[in-house]
Amino acid sequence: MISETMYTLGSKRSCIRDLFEYGLQQAAIVGKENVYDYSLGNPSIPAPAEVNGAIAAILQDTDSLAVHGYTPAGGAMSARQALADDLNRRFGTAIRPQNLFLTCGAAPALISVIRALAVEGAEIMGIAPYFPEYVPFVESNGARFVEVPADTDSFQIRLDELEKRITPHTQAVIVNSPNNPSGVVYTRETLERLAEILTRKGAEMGHPIYLIADEPYRELVYGGAEVPFIPTIYPNTVVCYSYSKSLSLPGERIGYVCVPDDAADSEALYAAVAGAARSLGHVCAPSLMQLVVARCASVRPDLEAYDRNRTVLYEALTSYGYQCAKPTGAFYMFVKAPGGSAAAFSDKAKEKNLLVVPGGDFGCPEFFRLSTCVAPDMIQRSLPVFRELIGQF
Amino acid sequence: MISETMYTLGSKRSCIRDLFEYGLQQAAIVGKENVYDYSLGNPSIPAPAEVNGAIAAILQDTDSLAVHGYTPAGGAMSARQALADDLNRRFGTAIRPQNLFLTCGAAPALISVIRALAVEGAEIMGIAPYFPEYVPFVESNGARFVEVPADTDSFQIRLDELEKRITPHTQAVIVNSPNNPSGVVYTRETLERLAEILTRKGAEMGHPIYLIADEPYRELVYGGAEVPFIPTIYPNTVVCYSYSKSLSLPGERIGYVCVPDDAADSEALYAAVAGAARSLGHVCAPSLMQLVVARCASVRPDLEAYDRNRTVLYEALTSYGYQCAKPTGAFYMFVKAPGGSAAAFSDKAKEKNLLVVPGGDFGCPEFFRLSTCVAPDMIQRSLPVFRELIGQF
Repeated sequence: MISETMYTLGSKRSCIRDLFEYGLQQAAIVGKENVYDYSLGNPSIPAPAEVNGAIAAILQDTDSLAVHGYTPAGGAMSARQALADDLNRRFGTAIRPQNLFLTCGAAPALISVIRALAVEGAEIMGIAPYFPEYVPFVESNGARFVEVPADTDSFQIRLDELEKRITPHTQAVIVNSPNNPSGVVYTRETLERLAEILTRKGAEMGHPIYLIADEPYRELVYGGAEVPFIPTIYPNTVVCYSYSKSLSLPGERIGYVCVPDDAADSEALYAAVAGAARSLGHVCAPSLMQLVVARCASVRPDLEAYDRNRTVLYEALTSYGYQCAKPTGAFYMFVKAPGGSAAAFSDKAKEKNLLVVPGGDFGCPEFFRLSTCVAPDMIQRSLPVFRELIGQF
Repeated sequence: MISETMYTLGSKRSCIRDLFEYGLQQAAIVGKENVYDYSLGNPSIPAPAEVNGAIAAILQDTDSLAVHGYTPAGGAMSARQALADDLNRRFGTAIRPQNLFLTCGAAPALISVIRALAVEGAEIMGIAPYFPEYVPFVESNGARFVEVPADTDSFQIRLDELEKRITPHTQAVIVNSPNNPSGVVYTRETLERLAEILTRKGAEMGHPIYLIADEPYRELVYGGAEVPFIPTIYPNTVVCYSYSKSLSLPGERIGYVCVPDDAADSEALYAAVAGAARSLGHVCAPSLMQLVVARCASVRPDLEAYDRNRTVLYEALTSYGYQCAKPTGAFYMFVKAPGGSAAAFSDKAKEKNLLVVPGGDFGCPEFFRLSTCVAPDMIQRSLPVFRELIGQF
C-alpha cells in the first residue's frame, strides 16, 4: 500500500551518491589520501566572506520577526527588488520584483515550472548531456521527458535532432549552460539558432514553446567566456537560478524562478508557477537566506581555485591521450572513456580508488564526468592513475 | 497551454491572505491602530534568544563548507541524532536518526507522506475543522480528500462519522493536535479510541491505515494540558513536525517527518517518503537551520504572551455571549458566529475593520477563527467592536 514510484525513487540511489559513499568507505580502509574522488559537484571553496558578514549584520540590524518570519510566497519584496536590480544592471533588462518567485533552490524552481506547463500529454525536452534528475523531475510531475542526443564533439546542441523531436505536445526545452556535466557554455550563436527554431515551430504549432534556462552555474565561467542571458535572445524564456554554486550555499536552498514580462502569457505562467510551488508544499524560501542573497546580490565567487583545477586536469589528461571538450564553465569535465564504455572505465578506475561518474545517466554512456571542485593535491596524486588507466584500454 | 489546476491554485488566493492584505490597505487609510487584524497565524513572539545565539556560535565554531554545504537528503546525521535524543528523552521512545527525514517545514513533510501513500484510488481523511491547505496538498498529489464532519461542541473527533467513512482505499487519517483552527488538544481518550478503530478497520481491510500527525503546535499548550505523543498510542503513526511555531521560525522552513520503526512497513515507507521528497525537488533542509534546531532541540518557547491573549479574549468574548470551546493549545480560537453564518459575520466585522476568518475553508462554515498571536493592545481596542457586533445579530 506504498507508492511503487516513490519507493523506487527513494531506494534507487543515484550512481553519483553510490560512488561518493563507496569513496567514504574506501577512505576508512586505505586512507583518505589514497582515494581520488571526483564524484560530487559540491563546491569546494567556502562561501565568500560577505555571506557570513551579511548574516551577522542582519541578526544585529533587523528585527527577529522580520528575519525569521513568513514572507510572501514569492519572497520578501525588498529581496526580490535587490535581485531584480542586480539582473537589470548586468543584462540591461527590465525585470520587476513581481517577475521573481524565490524558491528553496533550483530543483523546486524547475519542478514548479514543469508542473505549471504539465498539461495533458505535455512533453518537455532535455538536451544530452543533462543533469540526471531532470528525468524524475519531469516524469513524476505529469509530463514526458524527451531526450535530444548529444553533440559529442563540441557539446553544443544538435539543433536538427532537437527540431525533429518537436511535436504539438512540446511545451518546453530545458537548457543548462554552463553545462553539468560537460562544463561547456552554449554560444550566443547556438542560442540564436535555437531561438529561431523555437519561434518558427511555436508559430507552426500555434502555441509558445518555452525555454527553461537552468542556470546555477551562470557565474562560474573562465577565461572571459560569455554566458548570454537567454531572455534577451528568446523572450519565452523562464530562468531557474540557484545561489548554491555562485555563493557556495548548496545546503541553504535558495534560488528563484524568473518569468519575464516578455514571455508569452507571463502573468498566467507566473501564477501557475506559484500554484505549482504551493502544491509542492512551498511556503516561502528560507527567510534569513532571502535577506542574505539580497545583500550579496552583486558578490561574485572567487573562481581561481576551480580555474586552476580545470587547467591542470585538462592539460594533464589530454597530454595522456584522453579526449575532452575544454570546459569553460561550471566545475566539471566530460571525458571520452578509453575503450568506449564509461561504465567499464569507471569500474576499472574504482579498483584503483579513482571515482569518476559514468555518463549513462547524463545521456552519454561513452563519457565520464569529473567534478573539478576538489582539492588540488588530490588531483596531483590521481594523475599517475589516469595515465596508467589509459594504457590498459 | 498552462496547467489550469496550477493556475487556479496560484491565482485563487486564500481567504486568510485576502483578509490580511485588506487589513494592510485599510491600515493605510484609517490608521494601523484602527484595524483589528486576527487573520494570520504568524508567531508574534520573537525566536528565543538561543536561536540567534546558536547561529552566531555556528558561524564561529563550524567550517563554512559544513555550515552551508549539502547534507544527506534526510539531514545531517548529527542534527538528526540531537532531535531523536530530545524526543526519546521526553517521550520514552527509541527513535533513531534513521527514522527522521528533515524537510523544508511541515508542508512538504505532509506532502511527502501523502505522495508516499498515494497509490491508485487512495483516500486520505481530514477531520473538520482542519487546516485548509490539506485539501490541495492531498488533491494535487494523487489522492482524494475525505472530510470527517466536526464535533462542534468539543472539537474532539466524531469517531462514528470517521469510522463510517473508512473504505478499502483509506490510506491515512491526518490529525492536527493542538488544532488549527480550534485551539483544542485531542485527549488521550480520543486518541486511544481512534487507535482502536484504525487497528480494527485496518485488520478488516487487510492493510494498515496510517495516522499522519501534523504537529507544528505540539509545544504550544497552556495550563499543563497533555499532548500525547501519538506513536506511543498508535504504532502506525507518522509524525510531521515543524519548528515554525515552537521556535518562532516560520520563514526558515525547517521541520521533519518521523517514521518510527514500529510503523507498518517502516523502512519501505521511509524510502517512499524520501523518494516523494526527491520528486518535489527536495535536496536537503536548509543546512544552517539544521544545525540551529539541533542545538536548540530542548529550547521551549515562552508562551506567556499567547496565554494571556487567550485568557483575555476568551473571557471577554464569552462574557458578551459568544460561544467558544476554550482553547488549550496553539494560538487560535474558533468562535460560533452569532446568526449562524461566519461568512456573514466576517463581512459585517470587516466593515468595522475587525478581521476574522470565516470557517468555511476549515470545514465549519458556522464558526470563525481568531488568531491570538497578536498585540495585546489590539485586543483591548477590539473588544468594544466584538461587543457591538453581537448585539447586531
